[in-house]
Amino acid sequence: MKIIDLQAGFCYNKVMDELGLRHILAASGADALFLEQDFLRRYVTGFYSTDGYVVADGKGCSFFADPRYFEAASAQLAGSFVRVEPGAFEAAVARVQGHKTLGVPFPFISRAACARLEERGFALTDCMPALKEAMKVKSADEIAKIARACEIAEDGLNATFPRLKEGMTEREVAAVLEYEMRMRGADGTSFETIVAFGAGSSVPHHETGDTKLKFGDVVLIDYGCKVEGYCSDCTRTFLFGDDGRHEDFKTHYALVLKAHEQVKAELVSGMTGRQADEIARGIFREAGLDKFFTHSLGHGIGLQIHEYPALSPRGEEVLTDGMVFSDEPGLYFEGRYGIRIEDSVYLKDGKAVSFMRKLPRDLIIL
Amino acid sequence: MKIIDLQAGFCYNKVMDELGLRHILAASGADALFLEQDFLRRYVTGFYSTDGYVVADGKGCSFFADPRYFEAASAQLAGSFVRVEPGAFEAAVARVQGHKTLGVPFPFISRAACARLEERGFALTDCMPALKEAMKVKSADEIAKIARACEIAEDGLNATFPRLKEGMTEREVAAVLEYEMRMRGADGTSFETIVAFGAGSSVPHHETGDTKLKFGDVVLIDYGCKVEGYCSDCTRTFLFGDDGRHEDFKTHYALVLKAHEQVKAELVSGMTGRQADEIARGIFREAGLDKFFTHSLGHGIGLQIHEYPALSPRGEEVLTDGMVFSDEPGLYFEGRYGIRIEDSVYLKDGKAVSFMRKLPRDLIIL
Repeated sequence: MKIIDLQAGFCYNKVMDELGLRHILAASGADALFLEQDFLRRYVTGFYSTDGYVVADGKGCSFFADPRYFEAASAQLAGSFVRVEPGAFEAAVARVQGHKTLGVPFPFISRAACARLEERGFALTDCMPALKEAMKVKSADEIAKIARACEIAEDGLNATFPRLKEGMTEREVAAVLEYEMRMRGADGTSFETIVAFGAGSSVPHHETGDTKLKFGDVVLIDYGCKVEGYCSDCTRTFLFGDDGRHEDFKTHYALVLKAHEQVKAELVSGMTGRQADEIARGIFREAGLDKFFTHSLGHGIGLQIHEYPALSPRGEEVLTDGMVFSDEPGLYFEGRYGIRIEDSVYLKDGKAVSFMRKLPRDLIIL
Repeated sequence: MKIIDLQAGFCYNKVMDELGLRHILAASGADALFLEQDFLRRYVTGFYSTDGYVVADGKGCSFFADPRYFEAASAQLAGSFVRVEPGAFEAAVARVQGHKTLGVPFPFISRAACARLEERGFALTDCMPALKEAMKVKSADEIAKIARACEIAEDGLNATFPRLKEGMTEREVAAVLEYEMRMRGADGTSFETIVAFGAGSSVPHHETGDTKLKFGDVVLIDYGCKVEGYCSDCTRTFLFGDDGRHEDFKTHYALVLKAHEQVKAELVSGMTGRQADEIARGIFREAGLDKFFTHSLGHGIGLQIHEYPALSPRGEEVLTDGMVFSDEPGLYFEGRYGIRIEDSVYLKDGKAVSFMRKLPRDLIIL
């Protein structure tokens, strides 16, 4: 039975459509896609749920929703190219009965979930390379959601600065920042907010804790929020007052800022992730400090906080218009301080454009 | 090389130790465990990181940390039974070279990650059944962390009640609640906070949105927070003012509360999850309303918000002392309202004990 009219061309979420799904099926060598990962279900249908199955073949796309979601999914996806059906795994499997090869995302499907499908006689092929190709170039609609997530992040931190007081803990600062983002429309954080005071900033993935803010502290905040599933990612490093003992810090800050800005100025579509990374790494190398840049320059940003492409010394993917990623060079001096300056950026008309327009990048001394 | 002294008996996180790991190895038929999932790394080592590998065999346990975590992991795990080593996948693989069968968690390891290990010639066996047996019975230390997460959740909602005002959106109420929990020491939410006003409450997994609070609204809040990785889970349904049109609601509320309390009174160690579920379901059935109880009674709670055991019509696991789970009966009337009352509870001395001591369960009318 033909479930939907392929001529209609209606695309609910303005990201995926019938033709896109057919392309992914063909590129994966799959007869049908079988998706149970929440971010992939959301990518294909635009509907968010913690559970469910999205199944698509040449005849159409179905979302199998359990009773908790059926009402909401039916309402939200009415008129879209996605048919909402009741049921869970068994119903989804029944829908692909007769097909031989299912496309599933090998990096995101569990061994146990594979076994459940293989026991039913299906062969599995990896649909993630094709999905990844589609997902790494964002649509205008996706760019708009990320832009909104970035603007909320900027407004949130700008609203947090005046609320910082001596004696607040890292966790309390995170609480204020997350509150300010939530009140502006964020659905939540895009990852666990990192707030690091003093030497804690030298740990790139410091765990936000009960350290109290002191006059003269270096403060590093790495955070982001989500809007309709799409992430923002931002880092600022600043001083909570200047106790006059920050000469080295200021020199290093200027260097990190130079690396950060040079990436934006020099990164063009057609470069590889490795070449982008080298723009920043080369600046640190010239200064003899590249060994203190202990991570890669950036990562793709979308429905996941870490996705494609990778901007790293091993990043061979070519960067093209519509890709969204972080520009986050940093220098870390163990036990002293760390500095990271990060914007979420995207490639447009061949050039890097920052989503961040409201937060200063020059050193802030509160 | 013998990495640590098996006689020392020191257990850093008071949850897993050398003997526990050996038991899991033996029960899984594995020569070594190879864990890359963050909650499992945390379970074994007590150290939290977004990346890394935990490898354990009869000779000891190593955590392979990339540069971002090396400093923090070394400091936190100094003196523990876990040896911190630099490196990532290749280093972890080198550590298990010579072993034949690796224990990995089939429900949580991706097909791609399995392939990477199988390409190196390792056979894989599922260590999750054995890990699950260990994880579903909580230690006193784990119970204490969950208790703290529950107390913060209770204090957070109690602090939120007086801040509710007509015209606030669901998202703003979530913002306030999350802020109040964060300020009391929560590391974050244990899942996306559900705030549902009016008919939205009839959707068990309502997505918190921009609906505004009106006088007389039914309000359902399902939420929780994390403390050192451990989750709390709580739901309250209440009235934002009584507009005098809530007679059915009040009758149904009393029934849900009866089911909720009866579970606590009758659930004893030795029952299966199915029998526990039936305590609540039977009450709804007697009232002819069981078809409106559209989900299962409860789920295990720990480092994950949904873990073992399952309290559902298909739950054949036997409930024993030390298990932590939710007691969350509910009734949902599409387009009208939904009611759910949920505590996180545990089994102690054969009986169900609620972690919730501060939040009222009787109907609140604000």
